[in-house]
Amino acid sequence: MDLLSIKDPSFLKKLSNEELENLASEIRHFLIEKLSVTGGHIGPNLGVVELTIALHKAFDSPTDKILWDVGHQSYVHKILTGRASQFDTLRKYKGLCGFPKMIESPHDVWETGHSSTSLSGAMGMVIARDIKKENIHVIPVIGDGALTGGMALEALNHIGHEQKNMIVVLNDNEMSIAPNVGALHNVLGRLRTAGKYQWAKDELEAFLKKIPAVGGKIASTAERLKDSLKYLLVSGVFFEELGFTYLGPIDGHNYEELFENINYAKKTEGPVLLHVITKKGKGFEPAERDTVGTWHGTGPYKTETGDFLKPVNTAPAWSKLVSETVRELAREDERIVAITPAMPVGSKLEGFASEFPDRMFDVGIAEQHAATVAAGLATQGMKPFLAIYSTFLQRAYDQVVHDIARQNLNVFIGIDRAGLVGADGETHQGVFDIAFLRHLPNMVLMMPKDENEGRHMTYTAIQYNDGPIAMRFPRGNGLGVEIDEKMTALPIGSWEVLKEGKDAAILTFGTTIPMAMEAAALLEAKGYSVKVVNARFIKPLDETMLHDILSMNMPILTVEEAVLQGGFGSAVLEFAHDHHYHHAKVDRLGIPDHFIEHGSVDKLLEEINLTSEEIVKRMSRLAEKKQKRA
Amino acid sequence: MDLLSIKDPSFLKKLSNEELENLASEIRHFLIEKLSVTGGHIGPNLGVVELTIALHKAFDSPTDKILWDVGHQSYVHKILTGRASQFDTLRKYKGLCGFPKMIESPHDVWETGHSSTSLSGAMGMVIARDIKKENIHVIPVIGDGALTGGMALEALNHIGHEQKNMIVVLNDNEMSIAPNVGALHNVLGRLRTAGKYQWAKDELEAFLKKIPAVGGKIASTAERLKDSLKYLLVSGVFFEELGFTYLGPIDGHNYEELFENINYAKKTEGPVLLHVITKKGKGFEPAERDTVGTWHGTGPYKTETGDFLKPVNTAPAWSKLVSETVRELAREDERIVAITPAMPVGSKLEGFASEFPDRMFDVGIAEQHAATVAAGLATQGMKPFLAIYSTFLQRAYDQVVHDIARQNLNVFIGIDRAGLVGADGETHQGVFDIAFLRHLPNMVLMMPKDENEGRHMTYTAIQYNDGPIAMRFPRGNGLGVEIDEKMTALPIGSWEVLKEGKDAAILTFGTTIPMAMEAAALLEAKGYSVKVVNARFIKPLDETMLHDILSMNMPILTVEEAVLQGGFGSAVLEFAHDHHYHHAKVDRLGIPDHFIEHGSVDKLLEEINLTSEEIVKRMSRLAEKKQKRA
Repeated sequence: MDLLSIKDPSFLKKLSNEELENLASEIRHFLIEKLSVTGGHIGPNLGVVELTIALHKAFDSPTDKILWDVGHQSYVHKILTGRASQFDTLRKYKGLCGFPKMIESPHDVWETGHSSTSLSGAMGMVIARDIKKENIHVIPVIGDGALTGGMALEALNHIGHEQKNMIVVLNDNEMSIAPNVGALHNVLGRLRTAGKYQWAKDELEAFLKKIPAVGGKIASTAERLKDSLKYLLVSGVFFEELGFTYLGPIDGHNYEELFENINYAKKTEGPVLLHVITKKGKGFEPAERDTVGTWHGTGPYKTETGDFLKPVNTAPAWSKLVSETVRELAREDERIVAITPAMPVGSKLEGFASEFPDRMFDVGIAEQHAATVAAGLATQGMKPFLAIYSTFLQRAYDQVVHDIARQNLNVFIGIDRAGLVGADGETHQGVFDIAFLRHLPNMVLMMPKDENEGRHMTYTAIQYNDGPIAMRFPRGNGLGVEIDEKMTALPIGSWEVLKEGKDAAILTFGTTIPMAMEAAALLEAKGYSVKVVNARFIKPLDETMLHDILSMNMPILTVEEAVLQGGFGSAVLEFAHDHHYHHAKVDRLGIPDHFIEHGSVDKLLEEINLTSEEIVKRMSRLAEKKQKRA
Repeated sequence: MDLLSIKDPSFLKKLSNEELENLASEIRHFLIEKLSVTGGHIGPNLGVVELTIALHKAFDSPTDKILWDVGHQSYVHKILTGRASQFDTLRKYKGLCGFPKMIESPHDVWETGHSSTSLSGAMGMVIARDIKKENIHVIPVIGDGALTGGMALEALNHIGHEQKNMIVVLNDNEMSIAPNVGALHNVLGRLRTAGKYQWAKDELEAFLKKIPAVGGKIASTAERLKDSLKYLLVSGVFFEELGFTYLGPIDGHNYEELFENINYAKKTEGPVLLHVITKKGKGFEPAERDTVGTWHGTGPYKTETGDFLKPVNTAPAWSKLVSETVRELAREDERIVAITPAMPVGSKLEGFASEFPDRMFDVGIAEQHAATVAAGLATQGMKPFLAIYSTFLQRAYDQVVHDIARQNLNVFIGIDRAGLVGADGETHQGVFDIAFLRHLPNMVLMMPKDENEGRHMTYTAIQYNDGPIAMRFPRGNGLGVEIDEKMTALPIGSWEVLKEGKDAAILTFGTTIPMAMEAAALLEAKGYSVKVVNARFIKPLDETMLHDILSMNMPILTVEEAVLQGGFGSAVLEFAHDHHYHHAKVDRLGIPDHFIEHGSVDKLLEEINLTSEEIVKRMSRLAEKKQKRA
């Protein structure tokens, strides 16, 4: 059939399983083709083709509410709800979002991006439904990785307790983003290998042979019972103990099994856990073979071979640069331990892991735990490197406040993907970290201008022993600068003058330095002498340099790829007024007070006027008045 | 024995169980007496007397690390580690902290206050231990309530997976702060009632009777097996499935049982879960009888009767005022649903709960889930009231960003205990909320000056349908002002002039208004005409009023009981400079950049110079210069 002609999922009701199978194969073909050009989350979506079709056939969306946890597996859902024609614009500026988005479709009833939120959102929906006495189904679809997130476990606990009707679909694809870790995963693993009751016979026979005459030593019998029956009874007991009716394991690529179980779930009172086994990347061989997450989300690739079409950039990727520098330092410094919440690949910690397997811990999707494990390590004189994306650090805010900053522990937080991240959009932009870290006592926060300074800064962070220190660095690659052989520690709170000038000063750091330098050159050509400062320490500020600039009555423009409210520019304003430079002219450029959608970073920067042109404009105004006054 | 003479726990090694029992009874007597004067967490501490003694006898603190989750149950630990003589100063300024505190004693190896952090901290410590090849025990002690917190569940998952040696003590007192909720609690409940193997015989017999000839319909047999054996096998299966060796349930007031199990745990490889049943308030009848948490933490009381010595304050408590106003509005507005993370009593939601049992949800210690349940409710047109303490809202920061603010949902966040909270100290001060909420797009944030405005503001929040709206209010009681009969909605972003003036303006809100008014009167007497503004909307600002003040070139002092960095004062600075009032004189008064310890709020305000005297001083300076210039 023509996928482009689909308006909504109602057409599915009339299709036979065989027709659904053809549809699945067309969708797979479509996805493999389209994503080979745009890139996107190919693996997760190929895994849920039949599951998504089955859910849309069995339920009446949007009356029934389907919630996609994390949401990068919602492409099939987007196709079935009339958005196939928009896939050429996937994850592009003003194009189709890579996650569920309410403004795109009434079928997107819950927006996601971060993991583990769907069960809580669904709980809110079922409470509302029951108060309004509506007769609808609420169906969160959550992966086995997302299920290890603390808030999902909080939700399971509450859902089980309340006993309201809800159909939780556990999409168990044996791999979250990285190979899964954690005990819960082991439980799921056993459920998976157990098969559907097929083990029962052997186990039962073996068990019966072991039972002694009743009346013997009961306690030890009960103990043995427990051991021998463990595999027999584990199937679902975990979820059943929490109050769920457990159905499964179900082959997520088999319509018959899917419909049988979904229909049973629809008739069941109370919460149901539908344990569906799917294969990530199914139907595309390179993605099926993937065991480490390479095919989780990708750029463009060749459909025939699965070779990636890499953009030409020979500069080192930031994640790799930082993780490899930490690895290098770890050879001399046994205090260093790396912690990642499920991002060993994204954070490029594979090298560290293979060299120091006992000093690297992937704790799963568990940012809160990750941060506080780091705190615990630091209490024992270790130097933990917490590798975490800016947007996911949000989830560990309280742990950074309460466990790390308050106890003033020597944790090095490597804040990856800071600033705009591009195609992932609103939910993933790393633009709040300065505003949510700067107000914390004891915190040092910095950002390097290039990969060479990034190495010195990493060294600085490892040497620093007076409390928490965080380094933010962007998504993507460095500038390709030369790397110093020897690393040296930067004085804490020291800025660097990149260009001298006397009419006005630009204070900036990290990714916005090149545009500042470009602007300064343009301004120079116009006759303005502009100082450019690499304000690499966001906290503490370089007070000496600030006093110099402010006492010279130089107008200041601060530039940052982060939210303006409470950001670096505000820190400069605060400093100026705290030190009674009340007539200081300070203007701030940064990210305005709204969520920034998806699109290329360049396009987004242009959209929000974070450009060298805008710097020129703002500086001209500031410096003009200064010149007039002078 | 003389508790005051205890230097460290080593003396316990030589004591017999009978001597330990005498010690326990002396400690109970000591606690009941001391806390009757100072107040404090009496219930939790009376529950863990024997457990704490047993742990300190069985382990070698501080070489072995004992971590107290939440930490308000660490009083017995403090007595045994040489701090009995300091109990007269408990929770007082510069006195003994109510929580573990490293500077007090080397036996305090992990600081707490917020719940559910101990397992993660302990995990960091065991990783460090194993890298350093040390031979020590790490023993987190966590309550059944704290165990429902997401980060504790994340930790259980990881600890079970790693299989490192750790002895987790589950202090199951059948009641966290409020009667516990959640499915996990049900599991614990079953473990509790099951007793230790005593149920095995009956169950086993019943089970054997049900087994049909082997070879029959295995699947359904397996099903029935599962049902009939459920109670038999549930004992520990939950934790054992996660990879723990489960020991228990253990009577936490019986030394013999405690030592037997602790000693077994010490010899066990891998993580152990020691399930200890204790009775909160044990040994003090009024506290033992308590079922709702009245005796969790108290003020002074009469030891003979358990009557509380209430401070005389007839003004309504803020929590009660807000919750009862929401209740009143809920009678007319069926959209209203109240959500609390384990604080139905603290948030005074008992009235709401009894009147609207289907519209009130205590989700347990699960702030993340609570916030996102509210988001889910709002997607369905409901109006959730999320009642949460400022300090605990920190744990839901990402959920407020990602689920509430980003989806722009109509959630009313009632931020209780905002500002300094006093005796609970560092971990509980509600001083970051402005700085971590103000930078979020779509967020409205306000604070009322008195309980009458609090009611209008609550009404405003309920009427507001353009996104999230938060109202912060302090711990303690209102001012005793007259209450308007009819509630009216305040225009969003509108401030109120409390006193006109022309030389300078004080912009402030909430608790700091009285000191501002007092200062203004003093300044008036000195000849300064000072305007005082109730800046009740922290976001958005009253732009019209700000333009007026700034264009009149009036010096401004902002005053807030919240951290200065990124706070309200910074918002005013940002506004001034964004609108090119570059010569605006703005001075900011608030909470400086360090964690604020425990003590009475008045004492703390004095300590940080947040006083009317300081306002007078600052304003004199600001206004003086203005007058000179004029």
